[in-house]
Amino acid sequence: MSGPTVDINCDLGESLGHYQLGDDEAMMPSITSANLACGFHAGDPLVMQATVDLCLQHGVAVGAHPGYPDLWGFGRRPLACSAAEVRAYVLYQLGALSAYLQTHGARLQHVKAHGALYHAAAKDETLAQAIAEAVFQFDRQLILVGPTGSCLIAAGKAQGLPVANEVFADRAYNHDGALVARTQPGAVLTAAAQVVRRVSDLITRGGLEAIDGTFLPLAADTICIHGDTPGAAQFGQTLKEELEKAGYRLQAMGRGCA
Amino acid sequence: MSGPTVDINCDLGESLGHYQLGDDEAMMPSITSANLACGFHAGDPLVMQATVDLCLQHGVAVGAHPGYPDLWGFGRRPLACSAAEVRAYVLYQLGALSAYLQTHGARLQHVKAHGALYHAAAKDETLAQAIAEAVFQFDRQLILVGPTGSCLIAAGKAQGLPVANEVFADRAYNHDGALVARTQPGAVLTAAAQVVRRVSDLITRGGLEAIDGTFLPLAADTICIHGDTPGAAQFGQTLKEELEKAGYRLQAMGRGCA
Amino acid sequence: MSGPTVDINCDLGESLGHYQLGDDEAMMPSITSANLACGFHAGDPLVMQATVDLCLQHGVAVGAHPGYPDLWGFGRRPLACSAAEVRAYVLYQLGALSAYLQTHGARLQHVKAHGALYHAAAKDETLAQAIAEAVFQFDRQLILVGPTGSCLIAAGKAQGLPVANEVFADRAYNHDGALVARTQPGAVLTAAAQVVRRVSDLITRGGLEAIDGTFLPLAADTICIHGDTPGAAQFGQTLKEELEKAGYRLQAMGRGCA
Amino acid sequence: MSGPTVDINCDLGESLGHYQLGDDEAMMPSITSANLACGFHAGDPLVMQATVDLCLQHGVAVGAHPGYPDLWGFGRRPLACSAAEVRAYVLYQLGALSAYLQTHGARLQHVKAHGALYHAAAKDETLAQAIAEAVFQFDRQLILVGPTGSCLIAAGKAQGLPVANEVFADRAYNHDGALVARTQPGAVLTAAAQVVRRVSDLITRGGLEAIDGTFLPLAADTICIHGDTPGAAQFGQTLKEELEKAGYRLQAMGRGCA
Repeated sequence: MSGPTVDINCDLGESLGHYQLGDDEAMMPSITSANLACGFHAGDPLVMQATVDLCLQHGVAVGAHPGYPDLWGFGRRPLACSAAEVRAYVLYQLGALSAYLQTHGARLQHVKAHGALYHAAAKDETLAQAIAEAVFQFDRQLILVGPTGSCLIAAGKAQGLPVANEVFADRAYNHDGALVARTQPGAVLTAAAQVVRRVSDLITRGGLEAIDGTFLPLAADTICIHGDTPGAAQFGQTLKEELEKAGYRLQAMGRGCA
Repeated sequence: MSGPTVDINCDLGESLGHYQLGDDEAMMPSITSANLACGFHAGDPLVMQATVDLCLQHGVAVGAHPGYPDLWGFGRRPLACSAAEVRAYVLYQLGALSAYLQTHGARLQHVKAHGALYHAAAKDETLAQAIAEAVFQFDRQLILVGPTGSCLIAAGKAQGLPVANEVFADRAYNHDGALVARTQPGAVLTAAAQVVRRVSDLITRGGLEAIDGTFLPLAADTICIHGDTPGAAQFGQTLKEELEKAGYRLQAMGRGCA
Repeated sequence: MSGPTVDINCDLGESLGHYQLGDDEAMMPSITSANLACGFHAGDPLVMQATVDLCLQHGVAVGAHPGYPDLWGFGRRPLACSAAEVRAYVLYQLGALSAYLQTHGARLQHVKAHGALYHAAAKDETLAQAIAEAVFQFDRQLILVGPTGSCLIAAGKAQGLPVANEVFADRAYNHDGALVARTQPGAVLTAAAQVVRRVSDLITRGGLEAIDGTFLPLAADTICIHGDTPGAAQFGQTLKEELEKAGYRLQAMGRGCA
Repeated sequence: MSGPTVDINCDLGESLGHYQLGDDEAMMPSITSANLACGFHAGDPLVMQATVDLCLQHGVAVGAHPGYPDLWGFGRRPLACSAAEVRAYVLYQLGALSAYLQTHGARLQHVKAHGALYHAAAKDETLAQAIAEAVFQFDRQLILVGPTGSCLIAAGKAQGLPVANEVFADRAYNHDGALVARTQPGAVLTAAAQVVRRVSDLITRGGLEAIDGTFLPLAADTICIHGDTPGAAQFGQTLKEELEKAGYRLQAMGRGCA
């Protein structure tokens, strides 16, 4: 993240048919990049189309959020897929989402795997490489998003893709860089001021305070906030205002990469 | 179909997971265009990818075969979808299939709706227009395939798309141009020689003999043969040889359009 | 509806995976019968199990709410199924839901088709008969619910099943007994007092006032209220209190039938 | 397996919609028990109904073959489900399949988990217990089938269910009782005479020869043969004739248990 800019990303387009999830429109003013579900773990064609339209109207950069084909589990359950299956699943979802952008003459900015696929590929070189290859073969200008220092980031670089290290600003980190499990006390930060301080630390100091009080160096090209928690839109708005007050400018990751 | 060329198309890529349907590889030598299922009524990501690869290896032009989201019904059951739903469904499927072509730097040649969607759009102006719009907005060079003289052809032309009138060479036609229902005797032609004569008539005389013996004028830009019947590959091979013997050259519809 | 009792039914168990729909627990105190989705148009195994448990805890009688296999359309889009398909789909869903009751030694009370299947079978004798046969062959003591005077009611009677005429207390009716389309003004009644008056009319006068002011005779064995509208639980509570104040006792339809 | 009887089971009902898998009718004369797919990894309502009908006509005992909800992977890919999910999934599938038996006044004989669920539960006590509980709560007379000596067998016994140890007669075993991986030479036996000898050994000597030539004691209450391999029906027929010639009587596992 070069200069005093910051990219805020959020998972959107997760509604399906009669089911509403989150308030995508309310998140628009607070974010610069959106990760859109592609119909495997969430989302459907009408939702994808509407969310693409919404993002383009608000100048929010669109990324794909491909997941495992597991609607009942919302893509959060590990599914033992081969590298060939992951590659084919990612390509399918990239293509499907891109179609709605293509009708506007627009393009995807980035790809961020979802849920169990994201976590598996973060640690598994083979899966990470399968995803990086799929993304590269689809469009070599796409930014591959992954946890800072993960296999996904390494695979993206090895493939020659632009990459973006992602940090979860509202989650506590252990000293070793792993997220504190949601089941632990203090795992989730809810105070906007606290999150702003972390984002500020990430940008100016290149890291944040781990849960044990030590300083954790952590590259952050994009900051993820959640859109499906109560008060998410208000939280996003406050975060944005505080960041701007502190002198940062919100800007999609793709602008910084160009 | 200008000149002594003829395009033979076939529905392929209809296998799914553990389920094998048809023998796609065996059909390759006999056809010039393939309509690939896109995961809604048949096909899955691995099958789509493998079938695209197969077509490119054999120089068979690839088209999308989008259908209703109805796996149990193989997309053959009318589903009351709005124009907005049809548009979104077609775009999703075009995009998904295109991804596999894009990894090879290749492109779709055409779009042919499948089953109940094809039949509904052939008669319903609103659905036909929804499909034509989706195709046009995705890629205005795509050829829209429809039954000769149908709403699909009209909608494609109105939209400014190249179109291809399709005739089923192995099916009997009524005097009014409608297909003889499969339940009627003589509805399906199985003798290759008979089919060759019909294709020859379509090209040289601009029509064919209806089931009542009258001559039915029928534009034919592409001829559909079926790949999932017993002996399909052999039938295709014979048809090709007979057509070549009669002086026709097999050529994908897209070459004639350019 | 014999005696001063009234059955209030509501569609429940419509959540799915990560998606929450309605507040089933909040509806419990106001209703006597619940129609539970069975995984085709809504619901999933965990949701079905949890909703069965919830109903048993609150003494709410459980019915099956089978629909078309159309998650994206929430079972509200007509799908051209044969009678054999409908019969097999209904049996599948009855069995699946019954399994969760069986673990408690409990049984289904009734069957009410959902959405497009309900509306199609209300008018189509063949579909109505397919449903009635499936229900009868599964358990001849099940009550078949249908719109008052519909094909479903007739088919149920012809089959020898107990039946329950259903009226939508919060919807306006035309003079001919059809529901006023939701797109028309006055189609949906939102004031509890108004709905109470209608229920009272249904019980004491055997009908209600149609939208044109005429009196419409209408048998009502069960009254449907909706659980997924804002304020649904409060509305249900008010309706219950007003009915009890007016001297009616809420009682599941099955008790009246026994 | 008391006395000179032997139960031969086979996975059936795996077709789906337009997709045909195996030739269920051809297997009927050679088997005594059938494991029917329930719509999660294979099968659909029409197929389930038709396969139940077929089994009843031929006097083949019907069991449920519940799997993970993974059609693309045919239920063969491990999916990280909780015990609560597995319990709910198994109940759903038992209920759905039972509905078709119930229309004939018939009942399930046994339950055998499919594919990745079978293998996971064979080794994982928690999953095995979840399945055993689901089966017990559904119908405590159902026989739980599992690999000889597996967690599934232990969990079934602990729950108080009748159990059946399953051996794959056409697969080689390692000295420790594990199946030889399909990728190893000699893993699959194709000669009927060889399989007959193994079945004979299982019955008379209580075990079989492991791939390293040592004798492996192995309880066998039911023998699995495969129905989706080329020549499966002929193989089954030969096996049956040879077994009868050797003095064994084919009899469904449930008869031996009663």
